[in-house]
This record gives sequence, structure tokens and C-alpha cells, in this order.
Amino acid sequence: MKLWDKGFSTDKKIDHFTVGNDRELDLLLAKYDVMASIAHAKMLGKVGLVEKKEAKALTTALKTIAKSIEKGEFTIEDDFEDMHSKIEFLLIEQLGDTGKKIHSARSRNDQVLVAMHLYLKTELAEMTAMVTTLFDVLIQLAEKHKGVLLPGYTHLQIAMPSSFGLWFSAYAESLIDDLYFVKAAQKVVDQNPLGSAAGYGSSFPIDRTFTTKELGFETMKFNVVAAQMSRGKAEKATAFGMATIAATLSKLAMDICLYMSQNFNFISFPNELTTGSSIMPHKKNPDVFELVRGKCNKIQAIPNQLSLLINNLPSGYHRDFQLAKETIVPAIQDMKACLEILTFSLKEIKVNDHILEDPKYDYLFSVDTLNEMVKNGMPFRDAYKKMGMAIESGDFKPKRDIHHTHEGSLGNLCLQEIQKKMERVVSTTKLTK
Amino acid sequence: MKLWDKGFSTDKKIDHFTVGNDRELDLLLAKYDVMASIAHAKMLGKVGLVEKKEAKALTTALKTIAKSIEKGEFTIEDDFEDMHSKIEFLLIEQLGDTGKKIHSARSRNDQVLVAMHLYLKTELAEMTAMVTTLFDVLIQLAEKHKGVLLPGYTHLQIAMPSSFGLWFSAYAESLIDDLYFVKAAQKVVDQNPLGSAAGYGSSFPIDRTFTTKELGFETMKFNVVAAQMSRGKAEKATAFGMATIAATLSKLAMDICLYMSQNFNFISFPNELTTGSSIMPHKKNPDVFELVRGKCNKIQAIPNQLSLLINNLPSGYHRDFQLAKETIVPAIQDMKACLEILTFSLKEIKVNDHILEDPKYDYLFSVDTLNEMVKNGMPFRDAYKKMGMAIESGDFKPKRDIHHTHEGSLGNLCLQEIQKKMERVVSTTKLTK
Amino acid sequence: MKLWDKGFSTDKKIDHFTVGNDRELDLLLAKYDVMASIAHAKMLGKVGLVEKKEAKALTTALKTIAKSIEKGEFTIEDDFEDMHSKIEFLLIEQLGDTGKKIHSARSRNDQVLVAMHLYLKTELAEMTAMVTTLFDVLIQLAEKHKGVLLPGYTHLQIAMPSSFGLWFSAYAESLIDDLYFVKAAQKVVDQNPLGSAAGYGSSFPIDRTFTTKELGFETMKFNVVAAQMSRGKAEKATAFGMATIAATLSKLAMDICLYMSQNFNFISFPNELTTGSSIMPHKKNPDVFELVRGKCNKIQAIPNQLSLLINNLPSGYHRDFQLAKETIVPAIQDMKACLEILTFSLKEIKVNDHILEDPKYDYLFSVDTLNEMVKNGMPFRDAYKKMGMAIESGDFKPKRDIHHTHEGSLGNLCLQEIQKKMERVVSTTKLTK
Amino acid sequence: MKLWDKGFSTDKKIDHFTVGNDRELDLLLAKYDVMASIAHAKMLGKVGLVEKKEAKALTTALKTIAKSIEKGEFTIEDDFEDMHSKIEFLLIEQLGDTGKKIHSARSRNDQVLVAMHLYLKTELAEMTAMVTTLFDVLIQLAEKHKGVLLPGYTHLQIAMPSSFGLWFSAYAESLIDDLYFVKAAQKVVDQNPLGSAAGYGSSFPIDRTFTTKELGFETMKFNVVAAQMSRGKAEKATAFGMATIAATLSKLAMDICLYMSQNFNFISFPNELTTGSSIMPHKKNPDVFELVRGKCNKIQAIPNQLSLLINNLPSGYHRDFQLAKETIVPAIQDMKACLEILTFSLKEIKVNDHILEDPKYDYLFSVDTLNEMVKNGMPFRDAYKKMGMAIESGDFKPKRDIHHTHEGSLGNLCLQEIQKKMERVVSTTKLTK
Repeated sequence: MKLWDKGFSTDKKIDHFTVGNDRELDLLLAKYDVMASIAHAKMLGKVGLVEKKEAKALTTALKTIAKSIEKGEFTIEDDFEDMHSKIEFLLIEQLGDTGKKIHSARSRNDQVLVAMHLYLKTELAEMTAMVTTLFDVLIQLAEKHKGVLLPGYTHLQIAMPSSFGLWFSAYAESLIDDLYFVKAAQKVVDQNPLGSAAGYGSSFPIDRTFTTKELGFETMKFNVVAAQMSRGKAEKATAFGMATIAATLSKLAMDICLYMSQNFNFISFPNELTTGSSIMPHKKNPDVFELVRGKCNKIQAIPNQLSLLINNLPSGYHRDFQLAKETIVPAIQDMKACLEILTFSLKEIKVNDHILEDPKYDYLFSVDTLNEMVKNGMPFRDAYKKMGMAIESGDFKPKRDIHHTHEGSLGNLCLQEIQKKMERVVSTTKLTK
Repeated sequence: MKLWDKGFSTDKKIDHFTVGNDRELDLLLAKYDVMASIAHAKMLGKVGLVEKKEAKALTTALKTIAKSIEKGEFTIEDDFEDMHSKIEFLLIEQLGDTGKKIHSARSRNDQVLVAMHLYLKTELAEMTAMVTTLFDVLIQLAEKHKGVLLPGYTHLQIAMPSSFGLWFSAYAESLIDDLYFVKAAQKVVDQNPLGSAAGYGSSFPIDRTFTTKELGFETMKFNVVAAQMSRGKAEKATAFGMATIAATLSKLAMDICLYMSQNFNFISFPNELTTGSSIMPHKKNPDVFELVRGKCNKIQAIPNQLSLLINNLPSGYHRDFQLAKETIVPAIQDMKACLEILTFSLKEIKVNDHILEDPKYDYLFSVDTLNEMVKNGMPFRDAYKKMGMAIESGDFKPKRDIHHTHEGSLGNLCLQEIQKKMERVVSTTKLTK
Repeated sequence: MKLWDKGFSTDKKIDHFTVGNDRELDLLLAKYDVMASIAHAKMLGKVGLVEKKEAKALTTALKTIAKSIEKGEFTIEDDFEDMHSKIEFLLIEQLGDTGKKIHSARSRNDQVLVAMHLYLKTELAEMTAMVTTLFDVLIQLAEKHKGVLLPGYTHLQIAMPSSFGLWFSAYAESLIDDLYFVKAAQKVVDQNPLGSAAGYGSSFPIDRTFTTKELGFETMKFNVVAAQMSRGKAEKATAFGMATIAATLSKLAMDICLYMSQNFNFISFPNELTTGSSIMPHKKNPDVFELVRGKCNKIQAIPNQLSLLINNLPSGYHRDFQLAKETIVPAIQDMKACLEILTFSLKEIKVNDHILEDPKYDYLFSVDTLNEMVKNGMPFRDAYKKMGMAIESGDFKPKRDIHHTHEGSLGNLCLQEIQKKMERVVSTTKLTK
Repeated sequence: MKLWDKGFSTDKKIDHFTVGNDRELDLLLAKYDVMASIAHAKMLGKVGLVEKKEAKALTTALKTIAKSIEKGEFTIEDDFEDMHSKIEFLLIEQLGDTGKKIHSARSRNDQVLVAMHLYLKTELAEMTAMVTTLFDVLIQLAEKHKGVLLPGYTHLQIAMPSSFGLWFSAYAESLIDDLYFVKAAQKVVDQNPLGSAAGYGSSFPIDRTFTTKELGFETMKFNVVAAQMSRGKAEKATAFGMATIAATLSKLAMDICLYMSQNFNFISFPNELTTGSSIMPHKKNPDVFELVRGKCNKIQAIPNQLSLLINNLPSGYHRDFQLAKETIVPAIQDMKACLEILTFSLKEIKVNDHILEDPKYDYLFSVDTLNEMVKNGMPFRDAYKKMGMAIESGDFKPKRDIHHTHEGSLGNLCLQEIQKKMERVVSTTKLTK
């Protein structure tokens, strides 16, 4: 059964090519399609396009379907092109002609749009929560290890003293920046597109303000052509949000892989979080973190893939938009898996608190030692020359008791200020179940 | 003169390779470097790292340089690696030893970071203003031409009636979504990174809260490692903001190029805005809009280029970051040129108000005609059959007096609601000169 | 059972995260893993690392597995991490200690590399064949419709006469360019990597020349580190080849979608190849071609996704490489589906042979008309002025009997020369079953 | 003066927007435009479209312009839109009406196409030569340092012994793969597009076989529509070729930056090739290699940028194509600069031949030691257990005299075979001046 079937049988080859893996993906989205259908049915009743009792019957039947979805009992057989066909079939099966009325004053494009918006909104809220949890873990680790020094590198050359406090909380504060983009994506998807029909609205006197409130959207995408333009664009907005988080996680994973190398040996993880070698007993392979890095790097490619998909298409619906779904859904699942596994793993991190005992790190302190001489009154040029000579002759004695006191330095991490900044972002971000 | 010169002469080939076109780009950024240096000098005076009168002298000298930049008189000769070297040279030339003190408690990485943040902040504010102007023009055009109908397409097939009112305001409302991302970028760059030095802070007791206020930043990037991580990331955030605007402009330009084709003939522009052919007198080539489309499509590639540049680099400074400048600066200039030329050109657009007289567009009204029969009491299936037969036999008479009344439809554009939505975004977006 | 298991139980969460959908993808690759294992077993026997009869036993057992794969009976249960584990399990189950010896002098990295190379080589050969078939169809269509004129556009403005002969064969000749890149990819993957072990070779005296010949590779990737570097790089090479084909198909699909629009009405397809609308009887939606366009545009994003995945990783194996598989395999399937459906559909294309009767296309002939006057002796400037006046006054009479005679023009399509060029590429491209 | 000027003055703003930086880029391309114009003039004479003596006069005048270009004396003033306008102006200035005839039977699109093809062909040949030189240096270094061991890493964990011989020649052999793509690009651009005019050929009886031979093209792009389709596509083909080289150089640069870190200390460079720090005397910053990495990573983004530019444009010329020039030209310059500086720098590399003395690298030998026991007759499981216990108790004594003998292993680098493979690629690649 296909909604657009006009009597001629479409070649099977074509059918297989056009349907793709829609059915599988739709199992994830069906819940939102039903949610939107309930709001639509209520609205139809409100404005008189169906009778009150019909609206009631539709709503009840849809709620039953919603329950079967929740229980994992909902299926989309090969006879059905997608979730929309299957749900409509179920309604007609149960309600007869009343079931057919659910499709009044809307189109399938409409349905996909609103279901996708609801889905993305939920997933972005979930990601925000997961980023917040990861943030908290990083702040706790920064607090716990704030006194443990770490070499700071520039150009991958040993440069100046850093600390685990700085390192952990740097990624925490960096995640805040990413949430600004997640928030932007949320604003984009938190606009009701329902009522745009095929992209040019309807001659039926539908009430879009009603469905907007009913579905909990902050506002509606008023212009119906603009609403249609959200196909692909909403997915891309979400992808931008994810790409920013992914870039941060990927960088953190790169640091972790490097720091777990025997050439650094700064951190380690329990055996359960690493993989070994059948023959090299010293190996603690950071597979988990390499996969976080790899998956996050692939996520960073998603905005571009969506751009290529929808770019240079004139306005109006094109079937190409359908393909956005199979790109964004697995990317969201990967994003959440990476956030979860990273949070889970970081809690188990062990830091090496004897790193700087290795004399190769002595030079880390040259800048501070010089600054100290300057602060004690020696002119900079003289201090510089004196230290240079000491280093040359091997007499350089690093002043290891460093005092960095300014905001955000290793002696003054400003963790509370960073937490407050995070709270400000999160408080303005509506979390929706 | 190079800041890191230790006596050995670096091979010229290397020099040319490493400096690149920094000098040229730095002419645009010098203003912000001086601005930040003034704040830094004042701060040094405040915390006692230089004497009050030294701070005063530095501030005065820097303001003179600022003026020369404003007048376009500032130059960076080949002897200087970049703007930082040149400005420091000027200070030392004028103030001797005092001039040297400007570099206390900061590093070049620091300077680039803060100058880039100030630059991006200004440019993002300017772009926001330009988007707002374009938005206004689109809303005015929508209001002016709201009664003129246009075929609406799906799959590039003639589908349902649209209107110029819908078309223009669709792009207006779509631009609002883009501003959410511009805003996100603004939040990212509106954080003072100054004081992070080489990426690990300083042992000098600098006052970052002071420079944050002095430079008008909303907050500071507290963690110094996080501040350093903004190299490349701030540029990428800006690129994300631009890429969203660019996608909208590119789509609009595609529509314009299509609608100017003789096969559509929906719109036209005065001769000054099109280019002709030496031999085909009917041609009105839409070069301007093709170039807007092309430039905007290239801008959409920038986030990915920056991702490739900075991806998988472990934390800490790498020279690679320097190359972000030569990517982002021209992209910003292209973005602004596109916004300007599009706003300028759209004001001159002429719409064809006789489009739907062509009988090939009759089918546009089939859905509405059917809906009308249904509203008048005929069961849907009967109405559908009746109309199908009328179409088949050539007797289909479209009901051309359409009444779309719901929110965002062609009879109810909700322009005021869209404007209010725009105002809400802009009001929360700090515009900085 | 996992090959690297050393006794501690890895957390389930980690397990799920690291294995991903490897099992599913491995079902496609298992055939090649077995093929390589047979060559490896024979080699082990040849150099004396296993006894002759052991090599024989291994070979026989592997051939049985190969048959079960061919019959679709091979499965990878959840107990097994991947195909390698399952195949090794089967060998040990059947042969005991001899089964264990298959893994002598190789590593899993080795196995993945060689299986992937064999897989890609086969798929590239298949794609080459499919491109050749599509090429043939296009040449036949060009020949069949060579006399039917079509408007040629520049800037989407009506410009000069073109023909279906030109249009079809343009895409044919364009596909030849794409095969150069497919060929390049074939050269890259047609090099035996087996024997590189974990990326640094083996202390066992293996015979790589033997396995190279046995597996039908043109040459070997000699350097073992270079062989390891092919992880990700071989997939990217294949992706480059596909991206070039995809760009051509996508452009053709765009033309088709445009030309099927009622505003062009140049071509049509039988009902089975288009989708209709429940309400707009004139619609022949080009879903198939929109999906070809969309899928091909997504394929064009694959090289970049793989670049992001493997970029900036220092030499040596990283687990990230595993993720290349889940990107390249579905892309190959999509590529082949697009080639198949397009070839299948194009055979059914109907061209409109009355297009140029519409007077709006008269101007197409202005250039030729002018050239004719010039050829007849009138100075260009005079001819230009005369024609300009005729056009102005509405008296322009296009000279419609055009004579384009030069190579590659609409009167001289050079289809044979184009076919010869194609044959030259294909003949140098080794087709492997 | 603009070729398409029809009397009305185009607004300056538009002019500035549309011309862009064409003049600057055209200085590089002018040489090829003149070269093609000479061939075109000769052809016009041959087929009788101009008189023999006119052809002669045009050829002579063009050769004079060619000389002025070679001497760097050719300029494009602001009065001229581009090189084509300027060159035509010079011809008319010198030859009057005869000068005007150069534009017979061709169009500007034609000119850009053929000039770009000639330019790309030259640049690709130059790059091939530069890659060959770099290859030779790498082979020499491999030969020179073949005995020096290096830790081999997997997952960035110390894994198995590698050598400088392996490391250098791995990059050499990897470059061969990249040349397959450069070669593919060469095949694409080595096809004469001249004669396609505005993309639909000409009614003049031009002789494209003549210009093909005259310009030294291997063949012609026969179909004129296909020739036009090369706009953007030829640039993208070149970009693909460069992206493959760039990926290899970037990876090598990453290795170098890592290996120069004090945490590895595997290699070093003389002071002239590194940059120091004013305060940290131990620093040898690898700026050159970081910039090679950064530039090469940006080059890898070029194919995608060009895809976004030209994607989803229907067939026929669009002004967007003009923008490909400003993307590809600087990328080519960067590519060549990277190849040059890397070749120049690698010659100066110093390798540390005491790396493996550090006991942390002992485990590198565990696999070989185990293999040795097995080769000496101990069953694998027993050997494995024995070695595991030795490692546990700290008694593990690595067997450091390793014997890797198979093809491509550290004891048998197969440099000659790799060189022969390289020669095979280069010999089939036509080098054109």
C-alpha cells in the first residue's frame, strides 16, 4: 500500500530503490509521528473539520498505537512504505472512514517535518543533559587532581608547566562553547512546522496556534514555505550542534591516546577499559578512546554531507530530503554513545603524579624562573642572559615551586566561575522530555 | 626582526614559507591588536608590573598607532614578520625601554587570540546588522507583492499556488534561524582570552577581570588552556554562523536564477544588475546572483576546511593555527559582499504579476478545488473521482479565487509575527561597534 | 571469544561500543578473508612454517567455509567479535591444533587489509563494468535522438541550439574522465598488503611474492609500513573514484528533474518510473532521479568523511581505521544501485521532439543567423546591427536549418571517437571477477 | 571595456563584485590564453575564416604579447575586466580590424576552458616532477639509515621494531599511489576543449583536430557540451590529485612533529630549519613541518569546496564556475611550496641512532623473541607462557638481533622494486613543459 498509488504497479526495482531503509529508521520516529497526529486530530475536532467524537476516536486509537510503540511491539511490514502508511492503515482498520480523516488538511511532507522536529528536539535535549554530566565529571576531576602538574606543550615541544586541574577543566569550559551551538539548533527545531502541508499551506481553516501549544513548541515556523525549507535544514542545524561537541571530544580523545603512550605515560585506565595484546604484555590499547575520536571525526563530516545533499536545490520539496534521515539518525546515536562511554570511562582515569620528576621536564620552569628574577628586581635582559648561561653550562636549577595566581591559571582554576557560566547556558536551554 | 630570533639567520626560503601572507591580513587585524595592547598596558600599570607613567606613555603611543591604522597609514614592511613585531618596533622606537615592557606577561599567541576574538566579534555584529537589513527588505517585498500568485513546486513539478508574499517572507523567516547560529558564534568569541600567554598562563599577577571589562567582553575564557583551544575554534564557530547564512542566500540565489530563465519568467531585474550577450539580445544573465550562489557555496565549505586544519591536533599551540586566518578573513569579506549586493539588488526586483494566466498552471488549483467540493459536503472519494474525470476529459475548471486563511498561509502571511520573532533574536544579540 | 582476551572480562558497555556493526559488514567481506587465508595457508606450507599436509587440511577446511559463505549459510554470532574470530573458531573446531596455525606470521590488521583490498578491487571492477553499460546506453540514445534539437542554456538563459544527441553523449564522454579515477583507485588497491602483520612485518621467513601471485594482485605493497598506511587510504582512493562518477550522475539527474518539469517538458518517463500524486493528476514526480541525485551527492561527501577520520594520525595502526568500513561499504552499495537504476531507467526515456516549435526558443538561432550573414560576406558589425534591429522590431526570422559540422558539434557527434576513447580506458583497466 | 557591454553602464558596485580578483589570477594564466590564441589564429587561417596573412599577423602579435608576459611586463589595468579583454585590446590596437577577428568562432568560455586546461596540465607535470624528487630523497634516506632502528607503534603504544629505512621508504612508496591520481587528473585535463564556444559548438567550420595537435593535447574532448562540463570538473580532478599527495605529506609532517618532541627525540633538524623561543632554550619548534601539515590539510579540503561550488548545477555554463579559479590557483601554489620545502628540509634531517637503548623500548622485541623460541622448536603456548612469566618477574631479556628477511621488511627493504614501480608510473605520465 502506498499513499500515492494510482492503480499502476510500480516496478519492484524502483520500489526497493526509493524506499531504502526508511522502515527501520521510522521505528525510531513513529512515536513522534503519533504524537503529532494526536495534536492534529484534536485540532481537526476543534475547528470542525471532523466531528468531536471522531477526533476523540482518533485520539484514543492513536494513543493505543503510541503504547504499542513504547512497548516495542509496533512493526512496519514490507507491505507498507513507511510508518505513515502503517499508522494510517491501523487507524482505518480500527475506525473505518473516520480513520481516513486523519489525513485531512495535511500531507506526508508535513508529517515527516513535524515528527523530525519533535525527534531532534528530544535528542538535542538529551545530548545537552549528557554534555552537562560529562562537564560535571571533568570539573570533579579538575578539582581532585588540581595539584598534579603536567608538562604543557607548544608545537609538541615541552614548554611550560600545566596541571591536570587545567587540563580537565579546559575541556569542561570548552564544552560550554559547544552548547551555544546545541542551543542554536534547539531554537531552530523548536518551531512547529505542522500545517505547511506540501509546502504551500492548506485551504482548510486549520489552527496552527493550537497544534503549536499542544505539541509544546516554543513558537511556530509561520511561513509555510519556510517551514518546508526546514527539511534538511533542521537536520543540518542539529549536525552543526553535534559537530561542535564532537570536535571537543575528539581532541580530548587524541590527548588521552597520546598521554597513554609509553612515551608520555601521564595517565592510565583499568584493564576493563583498554584492550591488550596476545603477545605484548605492556600494551594497554586505548581502543575506546580511538573509537570516540574516530566516531567524533566522522560526526564532524555530517554537516558537510547534508550541505552537499540539499545544496543548490531550488525551493519546494524534493525527494532528496528523505535521505537526510539516514544520515542524521545514526550520527545522533553515535554522538550519544560517545558522550556516554567517555563519561563512563573518565571516571576511572588514573593520573600519574610523578611526571615532572623526569629531568627532561626541567626546562618547563625556565620562563617562571626568569620571571622570578625579574620580579626580584633584576632587569629582564640581564636575567635572560644569566639564565641562558646557566642552561648552557648545565647549571640551570629550575624553581619548581610555582605561583600562578591570576584567573584561570593553574593556581586559580576558577572552577566555580566556569560552573556558573555552564549554568547560565543550561538554564536558558529548555530541556524537553 | 623576528621576536624569536636567537642569533642564527634562518634560511630565506623558510622565512618566505612560514610568513605567508600574514602581513597583508594583519593590516585588517592591527586595529584590534592595538586595542588589546592598550588594555594590557593599562592593566600592567594597575597591578604594578609597570609604573603608572609608563602605562600612560604606552597607552598614548598605542593610541597614535591606532589613529595611523584608522587613516590607512599603517604599514608592515618586509623586515617585520607581522603586525606584532611592527607595533612593538614602533613602541620601542618612541619609548625605548618602556616600549619593551608592553610584552611583559603576555605572549604572541595571546595577542593573536585576543585580536582575532575582537575582530570576529565586530564582524559578527556587522553581519547581524546586514542580515537584519536584508530581512527588512524581504519583509517589505513580501508585503508589497503579497497578492501576486506564483506556482508552487514540489519535485520541480507544478503543484499548488504560492505567492510572492510567501516566497519573499519565507527567506526572511529562514534568516532568523541562521541568526541563532551567528549568535552562538558571538557567545563563543565574546570571551576574553587575554592572559593565557603561551597557553598555560603566567606567573605574573595579571588582572584578567580588568582587561575583560576594559575590552568590553561579556565574560572571560577562564581556563588558560581552554583560551588557547579557541585558536581555530573561534574561527570555526564564526564559519558555522556564516555557513548557515550562506546556505539561505545560496538557495535564494538559485531560485532567482531559475525564475529569471525564460522557461519561468517570474522575475526580472533592471539592465544594470544583469549582464547581456553581444549576440543574444534576449539574454539577461544573472551573473550577480550566480556569484552570490557560488561565493555562498564556497563559504559553506569553510567550516570543513577549518576542521581539517585543526582536527586531531593534541592540546597546546601548533603553528597550523596560523593558517586559520587566511581562510576566515576572505570568507568574512565574501559573506559581507554577498549580503550587501543581495540587499542592494533585491530592492530592484520586478515581479511578473501575470504568471498564472498561462493555462499550464491550471492544475495548481486542483487541490483547492477538491477541498472546496469537500467543504461543500461532497464525500472526499466522490469529489476525487469527479475531479479526476473532469481533468481526464479536459473539463477541469480550476477555482482560482483561493482562500488560505491559516497562520503562515498565502492569505495570512503573519509578517508581524515573523518580525517580532526577529526582534527577539536581535535584542538578545549584543551589537558591538 | 576475542583474540586479544587475556583473562579479564571487558565491560559489556565497552564491548558493545567497540564492536559496532562489524559483524554485519563482515558478512560481505568474509569471502575475501577466506580467499586470503587460503593463500596464506598455502604459503605457510611452501616455506615450511606448517607441514604440507597441514597446509592442505587448512586449505580444504577454508574452501568449505568459502562454500558456506557463497550459499549464504555463514553467520557470525554475538559470541564472536568479527569474521576473523569466527573463521578461526571453525578451523580449530575442525582441525584442532592445526587450525590454530593459520594465524602464524600474520595479524588481524593484516587480514583486514588484504580482505579489504580484495573486496575493493572486485567492487571497482564491477563499477567499471556498470559505468561501461551506462555509457553504451547513453551512446545509443545519442545516436537514436541525434536529430532532435534541444535549447542550450547558459546562465539558465536560452542561448544556442543543442540536441539530444549532444546531451546524451556529453554524459557518456564525461563518464570516461571518471573512469580515470576509478582506474587510479584500482592501481592503489591492486597491491598485496598481506605480510605486513601489525604494520612492521614479521620475523618469520614468509613469501609475499607467492601470496601476491596466488591472490592475483598486480604487484605487492612492498614496504610493510606503507602497506599498513593503506588502511583508510585504500578506502579513500575508492571513494575518490566513486565521487567522480557520482558527480556526473548527480548532474545528469539534475538535468532530468529539470527537464521533466512542466516548465521545460523536454523528456518524460513511463508511469512505472515516476510517482504520482493523489490529487494532482498531471504530476509525474521524478523520485527515482531525485534519489539518484541525493545518493550521489552523499557519495561525494565520502572522501571528506574518510579524510576527517584518518587525518593527522601519526603512522602506525589506530583503531579509528576500523570505522572506514562502515562508511565505504554502504557507499559502494549506493553507488552500484544508482548506476543500475539509472541505466535501467534511461532506456525508457521519451524525448519531446517538438520542443523548438515554441517561439520563445527563436532566439536560440540568433548566433547562427548572424554567422550565416557573415559567411555570406556581410561585415560582422553591419550584420550585428541589422540583426539587432530586426530583433528590436520583431522582424527577426531565425534561420533554423543549422549546419554545425566541426568535431563534437551537433552535426558531427564523433560517437565512434568517443567510444574508442572509452575502449582505451577500459582495456587498460583489469577487470577482475 | 567589457566584451558584453551593450551601451548601458553597469553599476560600479556590481562591477567590483563580479570581477573579483580575476585580474591578479589572470596574470598567471595569460601565457596559456596567448598560447591557445596562437593555435586558434593559425586554425582560422587554415580553414579560411581569416586570410593567411591575417593569421600570420595575429600569430606574430600574439607572440610579442607572449614575450611580454614571460618578461613580467604584461599588466591588466582596472579598465579591463580580465586578461581576455586586455589581450584583445592589444591586438586591435596593433592590427585594427584584423585584431577583432581573433574572436571569430570562439567564446570567452572557450578561452577560459582551454587556458585552464593548459595551465593545469603544466602544473600537474611540475608536481609530478617534484613528487619524483621527493621520492628520490626519501629512498636515499631509507638507504642511508636502513640500519637504524625505531620503535614501531600501534595505537600509539610501543609495539614492534621498525627502522628509519622502513619509515622513509614507506612514505616513498605511498607517494606512488598518489601519482596514480595525479595521472588521472592529467588524463582529464589533457583533452582539448577549444572549439566548444559557449558550450554548444559553432556553425563555423573550425578544425579542432588541428588545434588539438597544435597545442600538444593527447586528444580532444569531442562533445562540446562535455567540453563545457569540464569547467570546474577539470579543477576538481586536479584537486583530487593534489589532495592525495597532500594527505601523504601531512601524515609525514605529523610524524616529524611528533618525533621531534622531547618525548620521542627520534629526529632533529639544524637550527635554520626550526624556530626557537626567546625563553625556552631547548625548544626546536617544527614550524616548517606544522605549516606543511596545515597547508596540506587545507588542500585536502579543496575537492569538497569545488564540489559544493559546482554541485547540483544543471548543464550549461554558469558564472559560478569562474570562482573555481580563485580556489585552485592558490592551492596549486601551496602544494608546490610544500613539496619544495619538504624536499629541501628532509635532506637536512638528523636521525638519532641510539633510540632503542632506552629500556622502555625492550618490549618491542617480545614478539620476535617469542617467534624465535617457536622457531627453535618450543610449542607456541609454552613459549608464550614462559615469556609471560619472564616479563612478569622482570627477567625478560629481549633478543635484539632481529632478522626480518621477507619482502618489504626491515631487513629487506626492496628499495629497487619500489623504484621500479615508481618508474612505471612516471614513464606513462607525459611530462609537458
